[in-house]
Amino acid sequence: MKLAILFGGASFEHEISIVSAITVKEKLKGFELEFIFCDQDHTFYYVDPSRMKAVTFSKGEHKKMPRLTLQNGGFVKKSFLSSTVVGTSVLNLIHGADGEDGIIASMLDFYSIPFIGPRTAACVFSFDKRYTKYLCEALHVKSVAYETLNKNDERKVNVSYPFIIKPARLGSSIGVSVVKEEKELDYALDVAFEFDENVLIEPFLAGVKEYNLAGCMIEGEIKFSIVEEPQKNEFLDFEKKYMDFSRSATVSSAEIDDKLVTELQNTFAKIYINLFEGALIRCDFFVVDGEVYLNEINPIPGSMANYLFDDFSKTVSGLLASLPKEKRAGVSYQYIHSISSAKGK
Amino acid sequence: MKLAILFGGASFEHEISIVSAITVKEKLKGFELEFIFCDQDHTFYYVDPSRMKAVTFSKGEHKKMPRLTLQNGGFVKKSFLSSTVVGTSVLNLIHGADGEDGIIASMLDFYSIPFIGPRTAACVFSFDKRYTKYLCEALHVKSVAYETLNKNDERKVNVSYPFIIKPARLGSSIGVSVVKEEKELDYALDVAFEFDENVLIEPFLAGVKEYNLAGCMIEGEIKFSIVEEPQKNEFLDFEKKYMDFSRSATVSSAEIDDKLVTELQNTFAKIYINLFEGALIRCDFFVVDGEVYLNEINPIPGSMANYLFDDFSKTVSGLLASLPKEKRAGVSYQYIHSISSAKGK
Repeated sequence: MKLAILFGGASFEHEISIVSAITVKEKLKGFELEFIFCDQDHTFYYVDPSRMKAVTFSKGEHKKMPRLTLQNGGFVKKSFLSSTVVGTSVLNLIHGADGEDGIIASMLDFYSIPFIGPRTAACVFSFDKRYTKYLCEALHVKSVAYETLNKNDERKVNVSYPFIIKPARLGSSIGVSVVKEEKELDYALDVAFEFDENVLIEPFLAGVKEYNLAGCMIEGEIKFSIVEEPQKNEFLDFEKKYMDFSRSATVSSAEIDDKLVTELQNTFAKIYINLFEGALIRCDFFVVDGEVYLNEINPIPGSMANYLFDDFSKTVSGLLASLPKEKRAGVSYQYIHSISSAKGK
Repeated sequence: MKLAILFGGASFEHEISIVSAITVKEKLKGFELEFIFCDQDHTFYYVDPSRMKAVTFSKGEHKKMPRLTLQNGGFVKKSFLSSTVVGTSVLNLIHGADGEDGIIASMLDFYSIPFIGPRTAACVFSFDKRYTKYLCEALHVKSVAYETLNKNDERKVNVSYPFIIKPARLGSSIGVSVVKEEKELDYALDVAFEFDENVLIEPFLAGVKEYNLAGCMIEGEIKFSIVEEPQKNEFLDFEKKYMDFSRSATVSSAEIDDKLVTELQNTFAKIYINLFEGALIRCDFFVVDGEVYLNEINPIPGSMANYLFDDFSKTVSGLLASLPKEKRAGVSYQYIHSISSAKGK
């Protein structure tokens, strides 16, 4: 089964996308894998599997590799005498901007290239944390109370200390701070506004239980991963998260009862259905006083959360066979014809 | 001032986009206009202004015109000996799918082409009527109560008759029905599900006042159009709407008091700010018992609602000079470097 891993992107998460791609390469045995690198200047390169090492990209060696251009149905690799089409079936593994904000999804959709990954609308609701809150509200899924602040607003926060400040649109904990008292506020806002014009402010919940659950729709049913209780930290900083993207060892299930597993799965399904079809996503939950809260949707989780699935290759091939099909409109020109004939032209 | 009108698209509104482009051509005096046609197979063509007639496209004559491909900064027109770049500054005038669903916005963004039109997130919230409801709820903007139905759901509606059924994701009244009694329900749902897997059901409000208001952000302030009270119909059907996209004659302001004008403008601003920057949009409102309800956001209104502005060319050139700038992340490879050195590689 052919599958092209698309990675890189002009994003703060460019490097962890490279790490993710290298990790996933080892976990997708049985696939005929291709690798397409999107450089930060938005040039696409065809990378031979043997060159899939982090230093290839940090040293800029990819710049000598064949360039690719998009066309209907795939990426074209031109050589002096011929051109071949690669990437006819894609796994979007670009984390953060480009990959998770809807840009790559839109482009693959425009060029009718089948792909694993969130569609444009799904990206918009998961990439901007404000819009994830809108989604939760509309679907009656609990999430932590929040305020937003724009960089042009007065720096007034109504949430009690301690609270968390997050740039609205970045993942991987970039620009996130826990603010314990007022004197830390200005600096934390300065940091967050470096990354986004809008920030989210949420109460910091101490001692909350966290659970992660991944899944994807295969043949009309959601295939769930195990539930993981992630390692505790105040919150994951970028270097910690970076290492997290190279995870490949299987983990064991969280020690929780079946009722909670079902509740987590039901909440996941509410979020997923009618929006995330085509994607393998990871939802990160809080449990407070026995109630399930959605913390975050990772529509392209680090290393595709391979470590949460007992048979990751089978999950990916099942998803690839179940991708949603978009209907394109047929154009008949019947209105132009009827109007032209009415005008006698 | 150079501006390329991008029109067409693989959409049910392909033909009205052609009509819009022809209309806007006559209204943008003083611009150096180019025309880029996106065919239903997603090929881009360079159209000489003299060929901007509806029959050019319905007869397929565009297929003999120069083809364009996207590259960083514009569209490339290749000839035997040279290549020129056109469309370095674009007005997205593709109505419906492709233009209003975020696909074209994402592509222009990816290739760093400045454009007038809604950005990806703005498209998602206006294209799918369900998501417009989510936005209204989150921003505390009133909108008509609604239910949704998926084509796989049981056909059970709780709204009282008469009600309106609308496909979630189409504009221009395509697939919309007013259902007066139960025996009409199945057929109306069949029609709507032809166009989308999800439909919206809203009570039909008789005798409601309708007002349309357009505007765009120029130099940090919203430039508003006049408020129009559109012609009354039960609702606009496609042929009626089609004619609507060729409107160019200036209309007169609705006879309403200043207080209502201010309320309509304030509601418009709530929707627009932080989401629609870069676009000239038209919001269609209902007024019920003196309360303002958002009915619909048209992020690329027919013929750009030129007829609502006293100086349309000046509005467009002001908007073009005020387009939002996206910050792209710089990639330093500092994490890969530090991890490689920790590993001794």
